[in-house]
Amino acid sequence: MTVQTSRHNRSLMEGLRSQLDIDRVGDEMYSLIAELYPICRSITGEGVRQTLRRLREDIPLEIREVPSGTRVFDWTVPKEWNIRDAFIKDSTGKRVVDFNASNLHVVSYSTPVRERLTLAELQGHLCSLPDRPDWIPYRTSYYDETWGFCLADAQRRTLEDGEYEVCIDASLEPGFLTYGELLIPGRRTEEVLISTHICHPSLCNDNLSGIAVCTHLAKTLAAASREYSYRFLFIPGTIGSITWLALNEDRLHLIRHGLVAVGLGDRGALTYKKSRRGDAEIDRVISHVLKSSGQPFQVVEFAPYGYDERQYCSPGINLPVGVLSRTPHGKYPEYHTSADGLDFVKQDALADSLLACLSVVDILDRNRIYLNTAPKGEPQLGRRGLYRATGGAADPGSLQMAMLWVLNLSDGRHSLLDIAERANLSFGPVREAAQILAAHDLLADATYGV
Amino acid sequence: MTVQTSRHNRSLMEGLRSQLDIDRVGDEMYSLIAELYPICRSITGEGVRQTLRRLREDIPLEIREVPSGTRVFDWTVPKEWNIRDAFIKDSTGKRVVDFNASNLHVVSYSTPVRERLTLAELQGHLCSLPDRPDWIPYRTSYYDETWGFCLADAQRRTLEDGEYEVCIDASLEPGFLTYGELLIPGRRTEEVLISTHICHPSLCNDNLSGIAVCTHLAKTLAAASREYSYRFLFIPGTIGSITWLALNEDRLHLIRHGLVAVGLGDRGALTYKKSRRGDAEIDRVISHVLKSSGQPFQVVEFAPYGYDERQYCSPGINLPVGVLSRTPHGKYPEYHTSADGLDFVKQDALADSLLACLSVVDILDRNRIYLNTAPKGEPQLGRRGLYRATGGAADPGSLQMAMLWVLNLSDGRHSLLDIAERANLSFGPVREAAQILAAHDLLADATYGV
Amino acid sequence: MTVQTSRHNRSLMEGLRSQLDIDRVGDEMYSLIAELYPICRSITGEGVRQTLRRLREDIPLEIREVPSGTRVFDWTVPKEWNIRDAFIKDSTGKRVVDFNASNLHVVSYSTPVRERLTLAELQGHLCSLPDRPDWIPYRTSYYDETWGFCLADAQRRTLEDGEYEVCIDASLEPGFLTYGELLIPGRRTEEVLISTHICHPSLCNDNLSGIAVCTHLAKTLAAASREYSYRFLFIPGTIGSITWLALNEDRLHLIRHGLVAVGLGDRGALTYKKSRRGDAEIDRVISHVLKSSGQPFQVVEFAPYGYDERQYCSPGINLPVGVLSRTPHGKYPEYHTSADGLDFVKQDALADSLLACLSVVDILDRNRIYLNTAPKGEPQLGRRGLYRATGGAADPGSLQMAMLWVLNLSDGRHSLLDIAERANLSFGPVREAAQILAAHDLLADATYGV
Repeated sequence: MTVQTSRHNRSLMEGLRSQLDIDRVGDEMYSLIAELYPICRSITGEGVRQTLRRLREDIPLEIREVPSGTRVFDWTVPKEWNIRDAFIKDSTGKRVVDFNASNLHVVSYSTPVRERLTLAELQGHLCSLPDRPDWIPYRTSYYDETWGFCLADAQRRTLEDGEYEVCIDASLEPGFLTYGELLIPGRRTEEVLISTHICHPSLCNDNLSGIAVCTHLAKTLAAASREYSYRFLFIPGTIGSITWLALNEDRLHLIRHGLVAVGLGDRGALTYKKSRRGDAEIDRVISHVLKSSGQPFQVVEFAPYGYDERQYCSPGINLPVGVLSRTPHGKYPEYHTSADGLDFVKQDALADSLLACLSVVDILDRNRIYLNTAPKGEPQLGRRGLYRATGGAADPGSLQMAMLWVLNLSDGRHSLLDIAERANLSFGPVREAAQILAAHDLLADATYGV
Repeated sequence: MTVQTSRHNRSLMEGLRSQLDIDRVGDEMYSLIAELYPICRSITGEGVRQTLRRLREDIPLEIREVPSGTRVFDWTVPKEWNIRDAFIKDSTGKRVVDFNASNLHVVSYSTPVRERLTLAELQGHLCSLPDRPDWIPYRTSYYDETWGFCLADAQRRTLEDGEYEVCIDASLEPGFLTYGELLIPGRRTEEVLISTHICHPSLCNDNLSGIAVCTHLAKTLAAASREYSYRFLFIPGTIGSITWLALNEDRLHLIRHGLVAVGLGDRGALTYKKSRRGDAEIDRVISHVLKSSGQPFQVVEFAPYGYDERQYCSPGINLPVGVLSRTPHGKYPEYHTSADGLDFVKQDALADSLLACLSVVDILDRNRIYLNTAPKGEPQLGRRGLYRATGGAADPGSLQMAMLWVLNLSDGRHSLLDIAERANLSFGPVREAAQILAAHDLLADATYGV
Repeated sequence: MTVQTSRHNRSLMEGLRSQLDIDRVGDEMYSLIAELYPICRSITGEGVRQTLRRLREDIPLEIREVPSGTRVFDWTVPKEWNIRDAFIKDSTGKRVVDFNASNLHVVSYSTPVRERLTLAELQGHLCSLPDRPDWIPYRTSYYDETWGFCLADAQRRTLEDGEYEVCIDASLEPGFLTYGELLIPGRRTEEVLISTHICHPSLCNDNLSGIAVCTHLAKTLAAASREYSYRFLFIPGTIGSITWLALNEDRLHLIRHGLVAVGLGDRGALTYKKSRRGDAEIDRVISHVLKSSGQPFQVVEFAPYGYDERQYCSPGINLPVGVLSRTPHGKYPEYHTSADGLDFVKQDALADSLLACLSVVDILDRNRIYLNTAPKGEPQLGRRGLYRATGGAADPGSLQMAMLWVLNLSDGRHSLLDIAERANLSFGPVREAAQILAAHDLLADATYGV
């Protein structure tokens, strides 16, 4: 299923500008997060399906199902996990830990259990954070069949000796791995890949913020004029990207640029982690956007630990895929705990993240390589009305400078982004200068060869 | 017309040293500036011819005339402009603005006019600098046919309501673009291009200082032994370099290095603006000279705004041409105003600029690539009397070090300049070491291949 | 003569670790220095032979003799110099300068002399250090036939007018240049060259420390498992390396890495001087070792002044040979004076230097290029027991990170050293991670092509 592109002749940026009420969109993203928050997601199961069905109300996502047992590269699609209820009851029959209070209480992919244990026996199945005594940690055991509960350390310390009844009413059976995919076609078949993971239960920054930003990015892009085709993936972490890569290996050559968008709702500064290549166009575009933003930011080198970029940037795949986040994963104490809740993400941070993504897409989509058609000496801009008539003043003005730079560097080896970086200008005026010059036939488009 | 080269066997540097009385030359350059100051130059016309005829008293310049209407790349040689008189008279018949007082008063290339206007009508034709109320600005309108006057803002504010008579007794008619050219042949046909513009009226730093330094540089070079041929251009800015390039396109491949020399008389530190290539030999040579000078200096990257380097470094020409100035154009308030007068340029600044140019030419002309003829182990310098006889002391001395560096790096891939930079030595001792080693047959000249 | 390698399957590092009692080895190196200290070495003669014979007690050195007059590149092997006695007697017949008190008193390679002179005549043959009045300088005159004495400036100033008798009972006659060579073969015929000079008389840091460290390095290596073959040279400075290079020119292509090891006993920080190539593997390995040491260190660029690297790095030889020292030659006042005595070198500095050499050899010998055999996506480490079972925690641990880095960069273009540098990890854990992964068939060795 794909979105029909509106073939009006507006540029992407004009399209984006005309429809974005950024405050409203911030609120909408936050509402979506709030709506998805209670659902118990994992790498498979009904929680994922329920989440994707909700996203289909906003964007025409295709929901794909891959059977358990399917070989995907070095991995195998796991059994499907579903959970209905879980609790720990004390000797009085009181639920001291209750899945209905927080789905973080159960270690994700816990095997079904119903038994009675002493506190000492129970302790081996409990996980808490002594230095964050009020927070429930988030833990998983996807590939090691066991069961466990997470709880606040403060509560754990109140547990008294005696017998406890534990119940995890879950199933771990052959089924499917579920993910969402959306292709928004552009004028070109080459693709920009945008990926976010959907496998975390009630955690907001990681990963509901990514889901919300990607959903609204897709919605905005679908309404704009596009050069590239844009492919969105809403996938479970690690096994999801491995599965998608394995099933789509013959089409990976179409991916020109890619982005893992996740952790985009906290108050921290935007952080870009470069692709494994380190000098891919996506790396340079995002660095340019962050530098031009006037806000604090961080650009870090690739490392093989993090989110799905680990798979997209594995040596046999090596796609130009980076990661855009705010505070990087693991660098904030709330990460993977119950403190990453609805209070932790902010409307304006979500809106700022979406705007950054749109700026990135805008440059990716509008970057061009031109050839100066009058390359010997400067062309006479004055007789075309492109140069101030009176000479002598010291400052030529910034659009004028952008025109001179574009003419000087449009030798077929510099893109507009190259020129913007070399001239220390933002992409916007450089693009504007190029459009004016092209309208006067002083530039010929050589983006795809001459 | 070319200068006959004196084929004595003195090196360039020896030739230069023997004849330079630098204080005297500083005075001579200043006198030349003072003599040329009153002439009303523009991009065409009698003022240019008069200037070039004066320079022919010092150097055997060829004066070239290119007819109006000649197509030169994207441009057309304009009509020739000449001016005899101009004034604004108030209602009492008094000349309140008089071309005879300063040729800056008339916007260059003003069309002839003789009419009466109210002050309000006149204001649209006036230009002044409110934040520099005592200075007359310099303005031009080469390609937009109009007329105008420049005056001090303090004076402008005294103009009273009433009728004014304006007169510009000028002609703008088919004629010629005039420029000066001088080729000083060397042992090689490959050329070093040295270009300065001659289109400014009574302004001293921009451009009389460049005219004076280039004239004396040519004079000094003509008397020295040379490898390269040196081509000097005294041209109107922009249209002059475009015209020369268009008429000489088939000979541009001979240009190995080039320099726009302008703005060389103010008290500021020397500034070098690199060629578009950024790593041309001229870029490295001038950086080396400035670094070795022990004085403050600045090296800046190429940008497509400035003087005639804009044309020499246009993408379809792309010659290795940089710019040597003192304070860069537009970075001093006196730029393009009447304050750039005879007080603004200084003898010792002119002399220092000429010396820098001579050092640049000296390295360009004497840079060589050698091959060590005994490259396996060090050659035994001791038995040739090139190594101190007694061993054991810690410091080998700088000429000794230069010899070791030259031997070590003379593998056919390093020029003497490369070696000087790698060894952190000045070019002089490196060249001296090479001459000694070559005299002992320990080096073979591989500059032009082996 | 070569050492038989023990072909047990221990890795080099294990071999080294198991036998090194570093305090004991520091003492042994110091004892060797003390034993060799009194011998009067020069670039030829009995002192060299006596030194090499002593080293043969520790390592199976081959002692080579090259006849005087042999042409070696641009040089000729000089006559052999031997000295039995030397003195200056005053008019009372008292030995005021006595070779038996210090062999530094005689300029090395002094011609035989026995005559009577006035003090004024004698002064021309004396050398002292006015700013270090108590130290005897070390001077040589290998290639200029003359004679001279060195003495403390304080003593020189006490010499009274009168007649002096000077005697240098030396011989300078056709003989041999003597050096020691040891090849410790490894599994590969490619060699690591380790060179130290043996031409200095009673000086400890320069050069007995190098002799001691190289002797113990050879001893340790001989007992370990090795990939490379290791060639040790104990040679007179300059003429020794030139001679060896000239006689072995057809085998130089086997040398993959090389090190001049000298000046390794003073208290200063370790200093590495890069090879002429500047980016050779030896340069990167030693920089990595010094950076990882946690101690102060210095890495300096190649310059053609110093020790035998001048010859190994001459342009027609250009081997990847660097220099490991503590304080560089000439940068400590005791250099080439009697103050470089037994008090100047320290056991712990010698031991630290030896450990650094062993770390260098360890990386050189164990560096590998691997291919990830499951390069599409990450391999599933969990089912191989190589990944913690419970997910969610932020920090993966350093061995885990090393595994991820090795997998990610093992694309056939990155060695383990490249990976360690890129990941900002020490070589050790990276190597350990690679061994674990290789044991699980996740890496294939591609060091020598695939």
